[in-house]
Amino acid sequence: VLLIDGEPDGGVSALDRGLHYGDGLFETLAVRDRRPLLLDRHLSRLQAGCARLGIEAPATAVLRREIEVVAATRELGVVKILFTRGRGGRGYAPPEGGRPTRIVLDYPWPDYPRDRTDRGVRVRMCATRLACNPRLAGLKHLNRLEQVLARSEWTDPEVAEGLMLDLEGAVVEGTMSNLFVVGGGRLLTPDLSRCGVAGVMRGLVLDLAHELGLPAAQTRVEAQDLDRASELFLSNSLIGLWPVRRLEERALEPGPVCRRLQAELRARGVLAVP
Amino acid sequence: VLLIDGEPDGGVSALDRGLHYGDGLFETLAVRDRRPLLLDRHLSRLQAGCARLGIEAPATAVLRREIEVVAATRELGVVKILFTRGRGGRGYAPPEGGRPTRIVLDYPWPDYPRDRTDRGVRVRMCATRLACNPRLAGLKHLNRLEQVLARSEWTDPEVAEGLMLDLEGAVVEGTMSNLFVVGGGRLLTPDLSRCGVAGVMRGLVLDLAHELGLPAAQTRVEAQDLDRASELFLSNSLIGLWPVRRLEERALEPGPVCRRLQAELRARGVLAVP
Repeated sequence: VLLIDGEPDGGVSALDRGLHYGDGLFETLAVRDRRPLLLDRHLSRLQAGCARLGIEAPATAVLRREIEVVAATRELGVVKILFTRGRGGRGYAPPEGGRPTRIVLDYPWPDYPRDRTDRGVRVRMCATRLACNPRLAGLKHLNRLEQVLARSEWTDPEVAEGLMLDLEGAVVEGTMSNLFVVGGGRLLTPDLSRCGVAGVMRGLVLDLAHELGLPAAQTRVEAQDLDRASELFLSNSLIGLWPVRRLEERALEPGPVCRRLQAELRARGVLAVP
Repeated sequence: VLLIDGEPDGGVSALDRGLHYGDGLFETLAVRDRRPLLLDRHLSRLQAGCARLGIEAPATAVLRREIEVVAATRELGVVKILFTRGRGGRGYAPPEGGRPTRIVLDYPWPDYPRDRTDRGVRVRMCATRLACNPRLAGLKHLNRLEQVLARSEWTDPEVAEGLMLDLEGAVVEGTMSNLFVVGGGRLLTPDLSRCGVAGVMRGLVLDLAHELGLPAAQTRVEAQDLDRASELFLSNSLIGLWPVRRLEERALEPGPVCRRLQAELRARGVLAVP
């Protein structure tokens, strides 16, 4: 199912600023039992992103309803929302009185091997770096060429994800996931004030850590911190948490922090594939 | 007129990677007397951009013909080409066997005041910075949120352009134009190996400078270099060259280097509005 501004339709305007400039945001939600998971968190992040880009925020009740309609077509699946600044004239200046475009569409559940949650995944380091711009950092905006280029670096299906450094050499995230590092008794995740996407699952994990009394911090992470880590794991709304069992040549084991958080997420019913 | 893969059509696939990721390139050409100007240079740049992004390059003869068909509808106007990696599955990995999407559309000539070429323009400094990523630098790709945000900083129609610094403080370009600086007897333009768009008109001006024996260089430009400049001017394929007559509070005059290059461009018939 595909809804464009609430109407079933096949095509997007060739004048849409999402296409011309990547002038918009997106959300990717897991669907289980025909219901979108973590919907409130996704809608909140979209609202916050609109505020930062100066895009008129969506009417939440309308968008929520459209997401529910599209999600209802899938027992298990994915709903993606694209929310752009709408049609624009030629030129970068947003047109006066412009109205955003909202696109809601569904996808089949990705065929990730089911054992990744338990056994963990193989991960590589990407050569493609992330540029730093605090003005865009953290946003799930539509300017994603860096991720496309990084994800193009490998085709081996055994490699589940690639980690990206920023131009200054700090470790930031995976191409489609956020990174958590357990070391020195603390749960660390890269600070995203200069680049990266602040994932909904990442936010939930940080909240859970707080509730569970696990010491956690958003901080600068260096490549050496990965070498010293006792656990590494990845998060996003579809995968939940994947422990890293191999990073390049280094072998790791799924550890107790990841296991505890996985159990907590499972108990809260926010995983598509528990 | 709007051609999508050669067919007159109103809509773009909602699955296009141009929309989802800004995974593509664009070109903006001036049209005069129903003919696109500097067509070879635009096609070459597009080919080079495709090579850098790993997108299958367009069949040049086909694209050239489509551009000519669309341009023929305008006495004076603009043709824009969007060239994307095509439809994609969900996820950043480019699908195997994917085929690019080419979109060719026209716009009316922008209603720039006609005296800008002679009298010059007012320019401001933007607060929005450009992130540095050598992997994307120079490309006219579809990830243009920084330009959108920079261009949103002002609405005064008297201000023709805003200059952007990179995150390290170097002067790079305008939101929609490249910058030339005349100082110490030399023509300078910011080096674009870390960020920025290598404009077709910029390339032509550098070639002309070489032919005319004007000492010219692509180099790092600091804000102080602007203060010391005897001339500043802006370039793009639509405007040709606009001298800067005021940058923030500083007044300047159109100078001999800009005048000589304008005359040369006029003589070569590459300006839409001579």
